[in-house]
Amino acid sequence: MDEEEARRRFSQARVARMATADVRGRPYVVPIVFAVDGEAIYSVVDAKPKRSLRLRRLANIEANPQVSLLVDQYDEDWGALWWARADGRARVVGTGPEYERAIALLRAKYPQYEVWAPIGPAIVVSVGAWRGWSAAVAPRRGPSA
Amino acid sequence: MDEEEARRRFSQARVARMATADVRGRPYVVPIVFAVDGEAIYSVVDAKPKRSLRLRRLANIEANPQVSLLVDQYDEDWGALWWARADGRARVVGTGPEYERAIALLRAKYPQYEVWAPIGPAIVVSVGAWRGWSAAVAPRRGPSA
Repeated sequence: MDEEEARRRFSQARVARMATADVRGRPYVVPIVFAVDGEAIYSVVDAKPKRSLRLRRLANIEANPQVSLLVDQYDEDWGALWWARADGRARVVGTGPEYERAIALLRAKYPQYEVWAPIGPAIVVSVGAWRGWSAAVAPRRGPSA
Repeated sequence: MDEEEARRRFSQARVARMATADVRGRPYVVPIVFAVDGEAIYSVVDAKPKRSLRLRRLANIEANPQVSLLVDQYDEDWGALWWARADGRARVVGTGPEYERAIALLRAKYPQYEVWAPIGPAIVVSVGAWRGWSAAVAPRRGPSA
């Protein structure tokens, strides 16, 4: 799957999983809702219930900006599997025009924000590479070839 | 969600996402099929097409055994969202009784292995903590409370 197709599939998905790591290299993965605009991915801390607004994902990003985000489709027909991944660097943005832009993009994609309002900082990912894989377009290997 | 419920939901899922990190703390997230047995999670490199069998996930684990694995359910009703996460340490196992056990567990869970055969090493995760969250059981915060 080429970079443009990976970006297209990633952008259209409703949920992604974001991996961060702390300063000791300990990875941490969470599901996120998100919006893509060009080479940026936006997400925001919203009103879905949490133990605290000082989320570990934010602390990790402030200590180590490297992130990896994944969208994937599971199917019992493994010939229909695909994934798209965005690797890049993240920043935490709490106010200002970039924050407002993140909120606007997220509200446009998810009407749910009318109920589950954004109440915390945004994460802005600058994507360095889009990658994708699809069982349907990849060269076959092994007994099913 | 308590630890036992997180483990139960994780175990029953068909796909998880595994985050590893390299020696420089750069995270990397991939979808995996897996089987849970007690406090261990097994996956194996199978015949689904890949660029190489020297997968980055294996190199990362050999350099840094810390891993984080996520199962989540997305729903347009955000009140139905939940996730379950397993954090632990991973090892790469290529032969022997533990490898055979991994293959047996995976074949029992996924009939697809009859076509997409295991052809590479297994990853064995020793889970240190199961954690889970559900919008339906968590305390509400924000305007929808």
